[in-house]
Amino acid sequence: MELLTPHDVWVLTSAALVLVMTPGLALFYGGLVRVRSVVNMMLFSISAMGVVGVLWILVGYGMSYFAPGESGWAGSPAKDFGLIDTDPASFIGLGFGVTFAMISTALISGAIADRVGLGSWVLFSGLWATLVYFPVAAWVWGGGWIQQLGSVLGTPEVIDWAGGTAVHINAGAAALALALVAGKRVGFAPGSHRPHSLPLVTIGAALLWFGWIGFNAGAAEDAATAGLILVNTLAAPAAAILGWLLVDRLRGKKPSVVGATSGAVAGLVAITPSCANLAPIWALLLGLTAGALCAIAIDLKYRLGFDDSLDVVGLHLVAGVFGTLYLGFFATGDGLFMGGDAGLLLVQTISVLGVALYSFVVSFLIALAVKAVTGLRVPVRVEEAGIDAHAHGEDAYASEAMLVPASR
Amino acid sequence: MELLTPHDVWVLTSAALVLVMTPGLALFYGGLVRVRSVVNMMLFSISAMGVVGVLWILVGYGMSYFAPGESGWAGSPAKDFGLIDTDPASFIGLGFGVTFAMISTALISGAIADRVGLGSWVLFSGLWATLVYFPVAAWVWGGGWIQQLGSVLGTPEVIDWAGGTAVHINAGAAALALALVAGKRVGFAPGSHRPHSLPLVTIGAALLWFGWIGFNAGAAEDAATAGLILVNTLAAPAAAILGWLLVDRLRGKKPSVVGATSGAVAGLVAITPSCANLAPIWALLLGLTAGALCAIAIDLKYRLGFDDSLDVVGLHLVAGVFGTLYLGFFATGDGLFMGGDAGLLLVQTISVLGVALYSFVVSFLIALAVKAVTGLRVPVRVEEAGIDAHAHGEDAYASEAMLVPASR
Amino acid sequence: MELLTPHDVWVLTSAALVLVMTPGLALFYGGLVRVRSVVNMMLFSISAMGVVGVLWILVGYGMSYFAPGESGWAGSPAKDFGLIDTDPASFIGLGFGVTFAMISTALISGAIADRVGLGSWVLFSGLWATLVYFPVAAWVWGGGWIQQLGSVLGTPEVIDWAGGTAVHINAGAAALALALVAGKRVGFAPGSHRPHSLPLVTIGAALLWFGWIGFNAGAAEDAATAGLILVNTLAAPAAAILGWLLVDRLRGKKPSVVGATSGAVAGLVAITPSCANLAPIWALLLGLTAGALCAIAIDLKYRLGFDDSLDVVGLHLVAGVFGTLYLGFFATGDGLFMGGDAGLLLVQTISVLGVALYSFVVSFLIALAVKAVTGLRVPVRVEEAGIDAHAHGEDAYASEAMLVPASR
Repeated sequence: MELLTPHDVWVLTSAALVLVMTPGLALFYGGLVRVRSVVNMMLFSISAMGVVGVLWILVGYGMSYFAPGESGWAGSPAKDFGLIDTDPASFIGLGFGVTFAMISTALISGAIADRVGLGSWVLFSGLWATLVYFPVAAWVWGGGWIQQLGSVLGTPEVIDWAGGTAVHINAGAAALALALVAGKRVGFAPGSHRPHSLPLVTIGAALLWFGWIGFNAGAAEDAATAGLILVNTLAAPAAAILGWLLVDRLRGKKPSVVGATSGAVAGLVAITPSCANLAPIWALLLGLTAGALCAIAIDLKYRLGFDDSLDVVGLHLVAGVFGTLYLGFFATGDGLFMGGDAGLLLVQTISVLGVALYSFVVSFLIALAVKAVTGLRVPVRVEEAGIDAHAHGEDAYASEAMLVPASR
Repeated sequence: MELLTPHDVWVLTSAALVLVMTPGLALFYGGLVRVRSVVNMMLFSISAMGVVGVLWILVGYGMSYFAPGESGWAGSPAKDFGLIDTDPASFIGLGFGVTFAMISTALISGAIADRVGLGSWVLFSGLWATLVYFPVAAWVWGGGWIQQLGSVLGTPEVIDWAGGTAVHINAGAAALALALVAGKRVGFAPGSHRPHSLPLVTIGAALLWFGWIGFNAGAAEDAATAGLILVNTLAAPAAAILGWLLVDRLRGKKPSVVGATSGAVAGLVAITPSCANLAPIWALLLGLTAGALCAIAIDLKYRLGFDDSLDVVGLHLVAGVFGTLYLGFFATGDGLFMGGDAGLLLVQTISVLGVALYSFVVSFLIALAVKAVTGLRVPVRVEEAGIDAHAHGEDAYASEAMLVPASR
Repeated sequence: MELLTPHDVWVLTSAALVLVMTPGLALFYGGLVRVRSVVNMMLFSISAMGVVGVLWILVGYGMSYFAPGESGWAGSPAKDFGLIDTDPASFIGLGFGVTFAMISTALISGAIADRVGLGSWVLFSGLWATLVYFPVAAWVWGGGWIQQLGSVLGTPEVIDWAGGTAVHINAGAAALALALVAGKRVGFAPGSHRPHSLPLVTIGAALLWFGWIGFNAGAAEDAATAGLILVNTLAAPAAAILGWLLVDRLRGKKPSVVGATSGAVAGLVAITPSCANLAPIWALLLGLTAGALCAIAIDLKYRLGFDDSLDVVGLHLVAGVFGTLYLGFFATGDGLFMGGDAGLLLVQTISVLGVALYSFVVSFLIALAVKAVTGLRVPVRVEEAGIDAHAHGEDAYASEAMLVPASR
């Protein structure tokens, strides 16, 4: 028996940290919806832990990497079916991978608040994990085409340390597709669906930032890389909070908890691909810009007319793309402003487009398929009356403790 | 001075993870009760951290293991009184043990929602930790009779990695005894006491699953064992969420947050004794079955007529027994279906019965003793008017923020 | 590349643990205020993460320690500006330091509930971190005068393991100064401003205790020290919960969540400087006494007439002073009751007075300066109408979910 190494312990710890991000997301999203949809929204994340947890162990691990000599669209689901033939010595890293698949899938659910039944979501999330997440993970981290792009093109290799493409662009593009297929909520308009609980939003954001330390740094094997990632995972969201609040101030909006916490998330998303390849000073700039950028980007849905209810696109797709491309300019060594040529920027751009396109198209098709089977949306009368009470038989706050409008 | 080893760091981390489970339980239980009893319910867990934390350091550590040559009912309270003579090099493992004692004791309090004063609970919890938890921990992990059962009977040794008997059956049997002595709440009936806050339930469940990684894996010293435990502690609750939701669907109940989170807890309880001795595929089956089983088991209290308010019996006793006996069939190497004979099943059964019986009887006697001293229950008028306002002078949500019935 | 050592992993883990303390504080403080000020209060902590996170990386690290040969008031802000010249191998410890600066600054905000705008706080917090926290950290941990006091006076060296002076006395004295300059809230009187959500208080306290394991033990390099700290960080708050509840009982107050959680915090503050230098039995006594002491101390503000809204002084200053001086008597080896002479007590007292005086005076001046620029307080009509709605355009619980007075 091999005793635990320091890196083993760090990955175990990081797996626990990333695990808590998904219920953290349930709370973040749960706080952002209206009181009548909290149960439905939280169940999206919780059920994703169930569906994806089981699928990953059955087929996901085998699909997520290419064995020596294996190539193509994805690894093989049969290769390690149920982990029956897998060496337990690799299980620490594998458990870490399970938690990534859970949060990536759950992220999408922010696009469909108030109007999609749990059965439709369970179907969508299982198909998405299998047909989109597992293959893309194999492309980015499992020896697939994105990981080989640099050597094919004679450029530096694509940098996506912790999942700018594999997680955030992937989930963000899927969210856009799903929001388009699901359609807008009844009464969708700026300011129409206000968060019901900002303490809940804060709790969720707290668990997300906390877990993100493991998300970003979990794979680091040496002290300098781990330290750099730690500092950058503190610096970028810190600066992004300020960036978001600054933009809000400049355009006359008051400082808000939704803004400050969304800013932190924007900074965290942007630093995800880049955390191991930026000097802290450029992580600060990245965060500041990402916070400002996303503060503006989240209003696009009203102009473009898609109901991405909780801004998965405006936060995860936008900041994911920004953080991934930013490396083309600022990555230590190979960035265009850091002594490199345009090669890195090129492969970063290709990886962004490849993942975004693939995820959008396949997610759109999956969403159409689910719509054909289940209808996807609940009936309008259920949506108007409140999905929690009608589809779940539960109120977030039970009858004797109902939260109601009133003068203070 | 011995520098920290990787295993030291992992146990330190795990102690922090298990520590947060008890306030997590305070929130899980707090969300499950009505708005008028939240303070009382949360104080049960918080005070257990105080009472058990102090007792463990004074006498619990000495009682929880047998020194070489020592035998009998428990270790000696005087042996390491106040840890005055204990080598600090052992303190990391000891701190880990403190957190187990805290959560085990706090678990019981779910049985007595709405009707028991804090003084009665403090008395009960202190006596229970001393007379039940510390001795049983010595039996299971400290060299006592359960740990020696296999060599006495010529069978494989009892497997209880992280506390199926010592924690969950122990607390579950105590909860049954305490619920019987305390009696039913005024108006006890199916659906009579609905959870007041499902976001709070979700927060609590999140901290429980998160902490459970440390609970189950904290004692693992090698990478293969730690990795197996990590994967199983993800797989079983994931499958159990699906198992619970599936049973609910089959019997026409809508998918609920209480169901999904309770399912996760059921899976976590079931995998607790077995996490180091099951292949992941059998952990999936265990979780699926445990979720389904507990979904059915929690209704038994209405048929059998005991008011185990928050289903400590239906979750912890039932899933604890199931997970412990399941090893008799599926344990790698020695399980009946895995190439072994009935020997393991025999000793698993004996350990279940031994702990359940001892805990039930002694807890019943302690409860009777406390009832003789304090009356155990608050007066009916206090219970009817709300225990928080009358026994604690606090409302969970203060007067200007009172939660009230109303149309939405 | 140096592979991660066990200590590296522990510091990484501890950085994550301490990071979550600041949003934990946002929730603890957020629960303690009235429903109309929750957004404002939470934004104080969240914005402190932004401001201090950025400042620390720009100038804070350089200021917080003295390079060989460097001396004076503080290190140099230019020395490691933006960490451009800093060896990444030191970044793990540096990230750990960032999280300390965040929580220390955020602690102060409890003094100014309901009445100070975010802009004023951002200005104050940035100046305070720069002019007070960074220099004092350099004094205590970075080779400054407090660290050298023992060798100058021929006594044992000052003991402040994790920040009795640098964090708690520092923040507590600043809170007193800021509360005095800000003045009392409209209607300030005993019982006038009751907590709006005790579940939120419990969540915050849970994250604080959890994170405190890393806060206290993160710097330990050997197993015996880490283990001792772990046990003491469990023992002291456990005993302090009992100490607080006991005092409340003796003076006829009912057992409350605010009391129990505040007791835990008092015990944690008191054990912060002393966690590595007390036998567990004396940590129990320390905790018991600190809980009792602070239960009494928090009422002083009404007698002395300053509106330290959430008792930063009564908890952090009082327990910080108590824990720091307690070492003079009970520190293993050098304490007056432990075989030492009065030397340790002398230097502990000097360090307490030095930090308290410096922080109070400079914080008072900063507060006056901010007052001159921004007015510091919001207009009385905003305070009376509710600072969240008017200064932030957000309600903690949105309009359809407003929390209102009503009969239950």
